[in-house]
Amino acid sequence: MIPQGLMLTVPEALAAVRDRASPLPPRRGWLTKSLGQVLAEDVIADIDLPPFDKAVVDGFAVRSVDVNGPAPVRLRVVEEIYAGQVPTRRVGPGEASAIMTGAPLPDGADAVVMVEKTQCPEPGIVLLSGPIEPGQNRLVRGRELRAGDIVMPRGVVLDAAKLGVMASVGFGTVMVRPRPIVAVVATGDELVPFHKSPGPGQIRNSNTVLLAALAEEHGAMVRPMPIAPDRPEALRDAFRKALEGDELSPGRADILLISGGVSAGKRDLVPEALEALGIGCIFHKVKVKPGKPLWFGVGPDRDGGPPALVFGLPGNPVSGLVSFLLFVRPALAILAGIEEESNLSVPLASPYHHLDDRDTYRPARLVASPDGTGLRVEPLTWAGSSDLRGVGTSDGFAIFPSGERIYQKDEQIGFLSLRPSRSPLRHSYSTWPPGEGPQRTAH
Amino acid sequence: MIPQGLMLTVPEALAAVRDRASPLPPRRGWLTKSLGQVLAEDVIADIDLPPFDKAVVDGFAVRSVDVNGPAPVRLRVVEEIYAGQVPTRRVGPGEASAIMTGAPLPDGADAVVMVEKTQCPEPGIVLLSGPIEPGQNRLVRGRELRAGDIVMPRGVVLDAAKLGVMASVGFGTVMVRPRPIVAVVATGDELVPFHKSPGPGQIRNSNTVLLAALAEEHGAMVRPMPIAPDRPEALRDAFRKALEGDELSPGRADILLISGGVSAGKRDLVPEALEALGIGCIFHKVKVKPGKPLWFGVGPDRDGGPPALVFGLPGNPVSGLVSFLLFVRPALAILAGIEEESNLSVPLASPYHHLDDRDTYRPARLVASPDGTGLRVEPLTWAGSSDLRGVGTSDGFAIFPSGERIYQKDEQIGFLSLRPSRSPLRHSYSTWPPGEGPQRTAH
Repeated sequence: MIPQGLMLTVPEALAAVRDRASPLPPRRGWLTKSLGQVLAEDVIADIDLPPFDKAVVDGFAVRSVDVNGPAPVRLRVVEEIYAGQVPTRRVGPGEASAIMTGAPLPDGADAVVMVEKTQCPEPGIVLLSGPIEPGQNRLVRGRELRAGDIVMPRGVVLDAAKLGVMASVGFGTVMVRPRPIVAVVATGDELVPFHKSPGPGQIRNSNTVLLAALAEEHGAMVRPMPIAPDRPEALRDAFRKALEGDELSPGRADILLISGGVSAGKRDLVPEALEALGIGCIFHKVKVKPGKPLWFGVGPDRDGGPPALVFGLPGNPVSGLVSFLLFVRPALAILAGIEEESNLSVPLASPYHHLDDRDTYRPARLVASPDGTGLRVEPLTWAGSSDLRGVGTSDGFAIFPSGERIYQKDEQIGFLSLRPSRSPLRHSYSTWPPGEGPQRTAH
Repeated sequence: MIPQGLMLTVPEALAAVRDRASPLPPRRGWLTKSLGQVLAEDVIADIDLPPFDKAVVDGFAVRSVDVNGPAPVRLRVVEEIYAGQVPTRRVGPGEASAIMTGAPLPDGADAVVMVEKTQCPEPGIVLLSGPIEPGQNRLVRGRELRAGDIVMPRGVVLDAAKLGVMASVGFGTVMVRPRPIVAVVATGDELVPFHKSPGPGQIRNSNTVLLAALAEEHGAMVRPMPIAPDRPEALRDAFRKALEGDELSPGRADILLISGGVSAGKRDLVPEALEALGIGCIFHKVKVKPGKPLWFGVGPDRDGGPPALVFGLPGNPVSGLVSFLLFVRPALAILAGIEEESNLSVPLASPYHHLDDRDTYRPARLVASPDGTGLRVEPLTWAGSSDLRGVGTSDGFAIFPSGERIYQKDEQIGFLSLRPSRSPLRHSYSTWPPGEGPQRTAH
């Protein structure tokens, strides 16, 4: 444990979290349920693909030598071969077989002439003309991959195209890193369920909704729990249930997110309740604004798996959000086996005067730069760290290191994105009006 | 319908699809189940937030005039106020109330002194020193928002932060655009289920996995159906079931994706089967490579909702994938009420010679530019349009318009991303080693 009273910087606290997080043991799961998960085995082809020489157009399977004579060439049709069938006749000199896309090429034939380039003057006869190359419109067996090839290496994040590739080599199930299970408990006597009307002095519990949705956005299985009141035994009981799960929400939690009860107040009983459950404190408090009261611990020890990572997040929604993005998100990535990506820096849209003794995360919006070549970051005015509403209209947080400094327009500053996607790029929903866009040729 | 035999360009075909797609009628759903959906009503605050003047630190609620005298100031503590409680005592001259973060300020008090700046020499007495501003460490009622304010405007895509905001004003349910229901049917006598071993002339059906996963990645509810054989009545029956749903997969399909059976072959029976079900052809074939045989239609007419959009996709996996990204993705966005985003163009990593009479989509990878300031697109070598494996390692498709041209290094070209995210930015999983990154100050 880090000495009590020592306030860590963000990089120090992040390093302490990362040191305690490791990838979850892989499990076998249905291929069709593995979207977004990390592959934990090399997937190897069991057959050649395609498994036979195959026609890639509808037409006539021919011996190319026959077709390269004087046009038109007249051939006798000896068979019709549909996809899913096996040819029964060899194509000899002066012969052809009608063939459909995807069907196996018959012995003797080495190319396919497209149906659009042929004529059938009478049944059983086809007229066509060359030239045709050997191999034209034929996909040779094993051209895409060969039995024994590694089709997909361990460690990749499975997207739709990768699932399609693995399906084509027959993987009904695959070894993947499981989705982390994240339990969420909001604490506080002042809280009422969010869909109820608060009485005097009460507020709605929006934190369970926020934290559960954040965890879900980041690929976790989420276990939202009832509000826990500020009493030691009630807190212990709530945390134990959250960690263990039950028949409705089975599986031990890999991460426990607790909201509230970690400040210096007389009813901030969360750290004690956690320690009573065998969850050891790694650090308490981080030199960051907002999010200073963050508590992080690990435990209890248990058989057959690593102990849970436990985050006591500030009850203030924006502080909780920043803490999640800074510390829980990287932990989730490590558990899921996802390679962490590098930080983002973005030019500032206008000068900014910063003065604070803590690194400060300020809600900000990304705006297109005037020349349209990129994005710039614009800090928002906001009502303070409980102003989740301001954050609701932002894209993330501009990062200003501790100290006093005037940041210049166009200076690169750190940006902590709200978006969970690992996508390196804008989405490309296409909006070309007809005749515009990359299609520049006349039609 | 577009005149038969006329082959549309990509922008023309896309315009024809967009003309037939409209946002799904909104429905009321649980707030906690609305992640990623589009809000279809303005959400209005029912109460002020915060609902009372509130302490933002643990400490002592005071009259600021009392504290700004000669230090130390000695005040009598008249009450302890916890979050969730209602103060019962007014703070008069020479008095203070102990107060916890989140608790309501008592009448009379106009500021809170942090507990760290106070001393308690004896029970019931607190020593503290100024100066303190009126309003310090107090969050005034309604500072975040006022009853009647629009908290969240219709049309936004609901992310975790937005759900948190709406929970804080008590929205248990919200009107949202439903997720589109997408049914998927692969056709072809040559297909076997992907987890089985293909016999002679057979191949595994990877298309249902691919298309269902693509639809899921793009936010749809997916209904994968069994393989349909190449017989008119079997196809009609399969398409009817896919459109109607059943007790295991209720709800009529908004989009039907069919794979295979749309080329010029003798067993390409899909268009006829669709027309027999009252699904009118809008266009068949697009001047694009790969993906030319695409069939698009609409129908049948039905009560209480728009007719389904039906895409007959080429059976070749890569052609099907390109067709999905070009045409199905924008349709899904429109149905879900999501604003379509503009196209992407990216500089080319190396010169490229293109020659084709169709606009060509070539699998490509995004690579960091040498100066590290951005991304460039690098077309991949691949084994032809059935090479899904090559696509499995790509990030999307480089777009080369029809014609012949040498594209120069660093020339901007169109890029069709595989990634479904609407994220404008790299994901920011944080990987600062301690002491590096945006934190530049010494620790």
